[in-house]
Amino acid sequence: MRIAEDMLAEEIRQLGSITEVPPPAVTRIVFSEHDMRAREFLRERCEAAGLAMRYDAVGNGFARWEGTEPALAAVATGSHTDAIPNAGAYDGVVGVLGGLEAIRALQRAGFQPLRAIELILFTSEEPTRFGLGCLGSRLLAGTLEPARADSLRDTSGVSLAEWRARRGYAGDLASVRLLPGHYEAFIELHIEQGPVLERDEIDLGIVEKIAAPASFRLDLEGEGGHAGAVLMRDRHDAALAGAEIALAVERAALESGSDDTVGTTGVFRIEPGAINSVPAKAQLEIDLRDTRLETRERARSAIEAAVAEITARRGIRSRWEVINSDPPAQSGMQIVVAAEEAASALGFTHRRMTSRAYHDCLFMAGVCPVAMIFIPCRNGWSHRPDEYSPPAAIAAGVRTLAETLRSLTVG
Amino acid sequence: MRIAEDMLAEEIRQLGSITEVPPPAVTRIVFSEHDMRAREFLRERCEAAGLAMRYDAVGNGFARWEGTEPALAAVATGSHTDAIPNAGAYDGVVGVLGGLEAIRALQRAGFQPLRAIELILFTSEEPTRFGLGCLGSRLLAGTLEPARADSLRDTSGVSLAEWRARRGYAGDLASVRLLPGHYEAFIELHIEQGPVLERDEIDLGIVEKIAAPASFRLDLEGEGGHAGAVLMRDRHDAALAGAEIALAVERAALESGSDDTVGTTGVFRIEPGAINSVPAKAQLEIDLRDTRLETRERARSAIEAAVAEITARRGIRSRWEVINSDPPAQSGMQIVVAAEEAASALGFTHRRMTSRAYHDCLFMAGVCPVAMIFIPCRNGWSHRPDEYSPPAAIAAGVRTLAETLRSLTVG
Repeated sequence: MRIAEDMLAEEIRQLGSITEVPPPAVTRIVFSEHDMRAREFLRERCEAAGLAMRYDAVGNGFARWEGTEPALAAVATGSHTDAIPNAGAYDGVVGVLGGLEAIRALQRAGFQPLRAIELILFTSEEPTRFGLGCLGSRLLAGTLEPARADSLRDTSGVSLAEWRARRGYAGDLASVRLLPGHYEAFIELHIEQGPVLERDEIDLGIVEKIAAPASFRLDLEGEGGHAGAVLMRDRHDAALAGAEIALAVERAALESGSDDTVGTTGVFRIEPGAINSVPAKAQLEIDLRDTRLETRERARSAIEAAVAEITARRGIRSRWEVINSDPPAQSGMQIVVAAEEAASALGFTHRRMTSRAYHDCLFMAGVCPVAMIFIPCRNGWSHRPDEYSPPAAIAAGVRTLAETLRSLTVG
Repeated sequence: MRIAEDMLAEEIRQLGSITEVPPPAVTRIVFSEHDMRAREFLRERCEAAGLAMRYDAVGNGFARWEGTEPALAAVATGSHTDAIPNAGAYDGVVGVLGGLEAIRALQRAGFQPLRAIELILFTSEEPTRFGLGCLGSRLLAGTLEPARADSLRDTSGVSLAEWRARRGYAGDLASVRLLPGHYEAFIELHIEQGPVLERDEIDLGIVEKIAAPASFRLDLEGEGGHAGAVLMRDRHDAALAGAEIALAVERAALESGSDDTVGTTGVFRIEPGAINSVPAKAQLEIDLRDTRLETRERARSAIEAAVAEITARRGIRSRWEVINSDPPAQSGMQIVVAAEEAASALGFTHRRMTSRAYHDCLFMAGVCPVAMIFIPCRNGWSHRPDEYSPPAAIAAGVRTLAETLRSLTVG
């Protein structure tokens, strides 16, 4: 099966140029103007391929290639195109445009699927605007309460309910949920976002397990004051409490007993944020993941104990909010095997892997059997402007995806 | 001499209502729309009092009450009205509106000054926009190079040169500088921004010394990446280096050997600032002050050593920039004595003090003999919305200022 490698590279470049910041950096926050332009770009491309588009109440897009037996559950692929500030052009995008190209390649090859194939464009995989990632897939799987989702707010105080009204995604969020079995299978193509495949010179990773993610928001409130006038012994500096806690997050991950535990304080905001003012408030957002729940929860306990000790010692009030705390997911073995057989038949080397990054696939596991195909990315870099996968590596992933979709939709 | 206490309180309230954020919080960044509205408010009030207004090339305002001998050097008072984010209504404002009321009180009492009295409205005492405080007074004193000043940029990349052009302050910045002796004296009324006067129930502080301020900007650059995918041992997290450094600033101030050393990391920005991304960059702004240069420089050396050790250990590139490093200033003894005599004659208790916050007065000491009059503020709070001084305390300061101006301008 032929993959239109150059056209796909050009589409990735074009989508990468829809960004708030100068390329190659990509900033495309969900429901921003640039996100909406990216959605329009994808709608046009999907319709050009003869796919029927529909959008649900949270803005998830579904591009359907009807099968010869429409009553059968469809097989789905897809990913996201929103991007955190100053990210790259490949995270998510490879699974969306690559998924579309897999469908077009099957069409060009004259294939007629028995089951429909749907390309899903998930809303807000990234947590940038609302502080919670995978909004679209969480709602599809029913693991996020619609009322809670609608009341999520961005830093300007605008809720998801208001945002989707602004962007024309109407209806009750409860309508987004899919029943288990709605799809026959879901398979997501994605860059690895880690260094293993490139380092070991393996063409593809077939994901058999996705790490368990958790995230937390910590609000700290101390006492502000003039940086010149308040003596050191009289201070209750919220930023310094935050600094100690960020270091405690690192320590908890390092000392969990597992190399796979990762803890990150990726958001650290302080107020008033003026050079001559003692910080009165700090807000931290902490991401904690592991392939094993046990070591993740050990790290979490260590962090919570550190927060209690540090805030008590420094005289800081704190509020600890669990944004999410999800279990790990297992891939469907029949899909893993189908992908492995497709890769082998095409002559690609492959290895079963654990995904330590999480993806919409983690939540789609609540709807149907899932798997992921990983392709190598340069130096394992992701979430940065120099994120990159070579066209040949992308094409290998797309061919394997296409053959896997074929094998899952023939009967 | 009668002070129009209610009118002054109302003017403070009105000026406090010119803010980007809901009162009582005040945010009024230099050259913002709100800063310009505050300037207009003051121009109208000064002209209503019969004062002649002029503005220099950086926007410092001078409201002059002509003396009967215009050839003699004037006596000046004044302060600033810009405010850091979420500050209060009294810092600076009391010295501007209080200075104006002192002049009006002298006018109402039928006083005719021999020397002119000028009320100075300083531009950008706060460092919020350009990262460097006391821009106006530094330029008046010639301690800031005009070319360097013009090339200071705000976080949007707009320079001081562009901002003053936008706001109609034309001309060469070199023209701002005043020759030593341009004024006979400068005396600034200000809230204490510390707890001493209120705690010890003293009406007024007469400042004999202003602490030596220094400030630094530190840019840290590590390696970004996906928070799920980059293992802990492979990280070069710029925010964690920043966290260690902020704690090292605290330690250096605590261990300088002087209780008067204060070190603050008031700005702590990280990039990309997304919960699922390892921070690639951090920017810290550090304020360090002391009444003694020796202990301040000891703390500075300790901080610089910590930055070197932490960045080397964590594999972080760093750039250390000295924003300012100023010596302490001494008040002019004849002005201190004049203010003390005025306070005593009015029946107010007073104490000589050191100002640990710095003020335009620190730089005006390069132009003429200076002093400051401090009034108590609630709990020593400043740079926060609940900053407050009672009307009676303000009136005591204004009466003392008026009598001091009278004594300095009679002959």
